[in-house]
Amino acid sequence: MKVFSSPRHRLHDPEQELESSGWQPPFEHPGRAEAIHAALAADADFAIAEPAEWGTAPIEAVHDPGLVRFLASAWEDYQRDVRQVHDVVPDVFAMAGLRAGMADGAEPTSVAGRLGWWCFETTTPLTSGTYDAARSAVSVALSTAEAVLGGERVAYGLCRPPGHHATTALYGGYCFFNNAAVAAAHIAVTTGSKVAVLDVDYHHGNGTQQIFFSRGDVAFVSLHGDPARAYPYHTGFADETGAGRGRGSTCNVPLAAGTDDDAYLRALAGALDAVDAFDPAVVVVSLGVDTYVGDPMCDLAVTTDGFDRCGDAVAARGRPLVVLQEGGYADEALGANVTTWLRGAAGAAQLLPWSRR
Amino acid sequence: MKVFSSPRHRLHDPEQELESSGWQPPFEHPGRAEAIHAALAADADFAIAEPAEWGTAPIEAVHDPGLVRFLASAWEDYQRDVRQVHDVVPDVFAMAGLRAGMADGAEPTSVAGRLGWWCFETTTPLTSGTYDAARSAVSVALSTAEAVLGGERVAYGLCRPPGHHATTALYGGYCFFNNAAVAAAHIAVTTGSKVAVLDVDYHHGNGTQQIFFSRGDVAFVSLHGDPARAYPYHTGFADETGAGRGRGSTCNVPLAAGTDDDAYLRALAGALDAVDAFDPAVVVVSLGVDTYVGDPMCDLAVTTDGFDRCGDAVAARGRPLVVLQEGGYADEALGANVTTWLRGAAGAAQLLPWSRR
Repeated sequence: MKVFSSPRHRLHDPEQELESSGWQPPFEHPGRAEAIHAALAADADFAIAEPAEWGTAPIEAVHDPGLVRFLASAWEDYQRDVRQVHDVVPDVFAMAGLRAGMADGAEPTSVAGRLGWWCFETTTPLTSGTYDAARSAVSVALSTAEAVLGGERVAYGLCRPPGHHATTALYGGYCFFNNAAVAAAHIAVTTGSKVAVLDVDYHHGNGTQQIFFSRGDVAFVSLHGDPARAYPYHTGFADETGAGRGRGSTCNVPLAAGTDDDAYLRALAGALDAVDAFDPAVVVVSLGVDTYVGDPMCDLAVTTDGFDRCGDAVAARGRPLVVLQEGGYADEALGANVTTWLRGAAGAAQLLPWSRR
Repeated sequence: MKVFSSPRHRLHDPEQELESSGWQPPFEHPGRAEAIHAALAADADFAIAEPAEWGTAPIEAVHDPGLVRFLASAWEDYQRDVRQVHDVVPDVFAMAGLRAGMADGAEPTSVAGRLGWWCFETTTPLTSGTYDAARSAVSVALSTAEAVLGGERVAYGLCRPPGHHATTALYGGYCFFNNAAVAAAHIAVTTGSKVAVLDVDYHHGNGTQQIFFSRGDVAFVSLHGDPARAYPYHTGFADETGAGRGRGSTCNVPLAAGTDDDAYLRALAGALDAVDAFDPAVVVVSLGVDTYVGDPMCDLAVTTDGFDRCGDAVAARGRPLVVLQEGGYADEALGANVTTWLRGAAGAAQLLPWSRR
């Protein structure tokens, strides 16, 4: 299986992250991608390559160019104007309620104000190399998509930082650019075919949902911890189903705490039925393995064997898969969980006529 | 001069506050009010009383009742559901961009989600007694307003926590309930007369502005550090002048760094002209003394003598004054700065016919 990975992910290296009212050692750190990379590199069935360089045009096809500009300089602006610090986080947010009854505001001039304009939370520090790392993750996603457009049945992009929480004009949730959304939009626009994003990360892919909510060419189907208890809390409910041209093309499946392999597979089958109903030419999989029973942050109970069954179930639907890494925080199990998922997918793909052409 | 103060302010006792990408010792802490109280108590010209108890009705006249409900239980909810911690802050915020193109959301069910629904920033920790303290600050404001409605020319309310950053449905900026807005609305509604809020805190009173932006009965006039560089960054520009029935009744005067006594007094004269043009029966003064040259957080250069001139200038316009404490973080100078401002106001008031009745 073709795999794309960039060492530039290491440039995003938070020392800490701010959540649950305190600084914590970062769950989202370079060791995550290193662990997955090591497992892939140890296995001859995976052929790892670096991605091509991509410019900002595919990013700006789904994100506000202002977000790209901001991320390109924000860390340095902050060092100069506010404080010299390794991990930069916002402290005041441009929420709509600040202007209730007033006209819309404009992007502030100060970097402190701009942080709260382009970001929605505190767990996602900007570090000196964050922008370069985020750009590299998008390049990984796009090169993975190109491999599938070139004939691969399943290809995997080891994206880090992840992407699915980034909306059109907001970063957060460890995500800066929405790798999966950029890849899905790229495929949809360059091929003229429909694309589905299947998001199996524990957390609702609020960014991907928002980006495609009103689009008819890209469906968004997600299984995730019920936002009644789980981050990101404010979206991911079953009644969010799309709008306008996208009406009916968003599908959310909130899951109960403790959901085990069998229950997860049943929910996944329903989600895959929703994908099939949309009939996409390609499926972009936002592969979080934080659904794992041992994940330190989440509360589902999928096992490593369960990930094999998940990969198999997704690939058995017979559509080409662009599999992109999202979350997963049980460092010691990440390599096994990701490679097992991919082997499950590859095995199913080999049994299907399409893969033998 | 009648002064109202409540010892219950001490129940809001943050150990730290989160800003500039790190925890800091709290600028806004009980010692601020204690310092002002000590200066007032040492001076026989100030008669300190505790406020009456007021219910939530005057609060819910300007705030969403959901905000009141949230603050009443949020700290305990968080201890039970998230983590046992002294200072509770949000980490993920329900920004409009998360739902761009989608229908409006509803208040989340989890306390972590609700925090980011009702709050706009991170510098304002909830502690175990915050709600009781915030309620007491509103009672101080209302009792001070009642004293002026009862015939006092100038009365002072030692409100803590402060209030002017709290909007209809958001807390933040050290503020939970908007003491000045509750008092101004109470006066306007109970008397049927027009009221102006004159906000001389260093920081733009974004909450007060939002609450009254479209109302014709309460004007909002503010001098503050230019939001191009100063918190709260997203509002406080000169082109924000009110809407609907409030068109023309909001007036913002952004100030340059280093503004000294003479320059400040010139700007204040212009602001007072705007107040006079509105012709209110009562002026509620949001008295921040963080315009002080020695303030550790701000960058204006008003001196203690300057505060005497400011109090004099405001009272010399001949309108009864409900003076309510907002910010000010140079602890060692707070007592002198506040009492000097109040003496300036009292002196001018004594020279005017109204005060001799």
